[in-house]
Amino acid sequence: MKITVLGAGAWGTAFGQLLADAGNDVMMWAREPEIVQGIRDHRHNAVRLPSVERLPENMSATGDQAEAVRGAQIVVVAIAAQFARIALESFKDLIPENAIVVSLMKGIERNTGKRMDEVVREALALPAERFAAISGPNLSKEIADRQPSATVVACEDIDVAHTVATSCTTGYFKTFVTTDVIGLEMCGSLKNVVALAVGMARGAGYGENTAAMIETRGLAELTALGEAAGASPRTFAGLAGVGDLIATCGSPLSRNYTFGSNLGKGMSVAEATAASSGVAEGVPTTDAVVALGRKLGVPTPLAYAMSRVLDEGIPCSQMLGELFSADIGEE
Amino acid sequence: MKITVLGAGAWGTAFGQLLADAGNDVMMWAREPEIVQGIRDHRHNAVRLPSVERLPENMSATGDQAEAVRGAQIVVVAIAAQFARIALESFKDLIPENAIVVSLMKGIERNTGKRMDEVVREALALPAERFAAISGPNLSKEIADRQPSATVVACEDIDVAHTVATSCTTGYFKTFVTTDVIGLEMCGSLKNVVALAVGMARGAGYGENTAAMIETRGLAELTALGEAAGASPRTFAGLAGVGDLIATCGSPLSRNYTFGSNLGKGMSVAEATAASSGVAEGVPTTDAVVALGRKLGVPTPLAYAMSRVLDEGIPCSQMLGELFSADIGEE
Repeated sequence: MKITVLGAGAWGTAFGQLLADAGNDVMMWAREPEIVQGIRDHRHNAVRLPSVERLPENMSATGDQAEAVRGAQIVVVAIAAQFARIALESFKDLIPENAIVVSLMKGIERNTGKRMDEVVREALALPAERFAAISGPNLSKEIADRQPSATVVACEDIDVAHTVATSCTTGYFKTFVTTDVIGLEMCGSLKNVVALAVGMARGAGYGENTAAMIETRGLAELTALGEAAGASPRTFAGLAGVGDLIATCGSPLSRNYTFGSNLGKGMSVAEATAASSGVAEGVPTTDAVVALGRKLGVPTPLAYAMSRVLDEGIPCSQMLGELFSADIGEE
Repeated sequence: MKITVLGAGAWGTAFGQLLADAGNDVMMWAREPEIVQGIRDHRHNAVRLPSVERLPENMSATGDQAEAVRGAQIVVVAIAAQFARIALESFKDLIPENAIVVSLMKGIERNTGKRMDEVVREALALPAERFAAISGPNLSKEIADRQPSATVVACEDIDVAHTVATSCTTGYFKTFVTTDVIGLEMCGSLKNVVALAVGMARGAGYGENTAAMIETRGLAELTALGEAAGASPRTFAGLAGVGDLIATCGSPLSRNYTFGSNLGKGMSVAEATAASSGVAEGVPTTDAVVALGRKLGVPTPLAYAMSRVLDEGIPCSQMLGELFSADIGEE
């Protein structure tokens, strides 16, 4: 198939390589001329994915928007979540009429509180059956290394999900399909609150027991929230839910983990923000989870405890204390 | 309460300290005179838990079986799974008539294929309402360090579960209760197959994505098996299920992880067995899971792939290939 990837960050480039490995003709689009030139002329993305020395032959690149999406059967979007809407609006009249649009993005649009599926579909005036999202335990660096991984493709139309899944299945990348777009999107963004809390516990010097406790209770909290929002609990129990949570919380390289870890070591929120290159996604997401819980009538003790860390600077020990009510609960 | 702990290994001793911290009078029983003397006279278990320099004052120890359990309201059993039956039979006529017996053991009795709840209840002729089991993400070393942890107490009688949970709740140890004894027991033993596979993937050089994929698909396999056996899927989604799985697979110190890791590095099963001090629990459990799956009509692709590793020596890449059918599945 002819597939275009919008955005040549680490994840977009690694996914582009994966699509090329699966036998597709891949066109990368990037705004930065040095990235376009690097991929096209040197088969190398020195800026965002230097670890891959030679990108596949069946991958090209352009900085021209019309050229990028011309004739594309699938358009994959891998743009930073907060810039997705404005970037996509400029592609609205260029994307072929029947192309499927696939989001690799995770997050919540800050000024609207909307999920990425909502942002993409609004920006492109896209019907549900032409929108798919991909999420799973997929750290870019490891996909770029062609390590065995699995993911979930979600589309309201299961046949479209199968089409997308087939296009990105390789010997090292196994795909599953679902129609639960909302659940998949919620898993991908909300897990960052849990990653923040696990990072904090690690930074405070705690080990596997504490991390596993936070991950498990956090998962239960997000699952309840998802169910109340119309998502399926199975999505949260699967690769896009617990799978992605395990990979994210297991990787000390993620920005949420590092930010939380710095808080756990005793930094203030201001110090941790200064120490990291920009705000971790889990910070605004924490407020979004608390607000969603209030709206849906679902208790969110972990997100609430983390909001007290972020707003009032309570330490890790108190955050963990707040996570649990005084009573012995049923599981 | 007066509580006796049978077995002063690392977990028994760490749990004994926890019970003492919760305000109970704790009596440790051990077969080895040097361990008894060390705890009683020096407040130190130099053999099994040297990291704790001074065990609590309200903990004593004896090698005398009758003295050990005299007047105990709760008897906690923390004996190696394969020796539990024979050891407990010698306590049968000594344990007070109304004492609750709590198992900390995880595993399957090899020559009978029975769960620990079955072994304990048979050995002591114990009714269901006097038996409880405890399981969760509880690495001994971290509990001994008093790191924040949580666990699940299971008993068919929920009031008894509450009694046991109350007896072992402290500021650093949070308890939940359930009546799903079978689910809790299955989680605790069967997860070792997953730990073996994750260790193998790590040994082969794979990272977070592969580990998270194996853990998630392994959890789905064990959950399906549990449901078919009458357990609740909620137990598998909770602290005793996914929680314990995350902690176990995150700890490179466990015997299953190390054994799997050595296989992943290219050792044969014989070499890996020679390199470890005894057979890892996950090895016989793999066969038990495959057999249980056949009996209950539940597919067990991970356990089957691991059985081919153990029986035929297939490498990690092939094990991962076998884990997935060729088709794109629904999650």
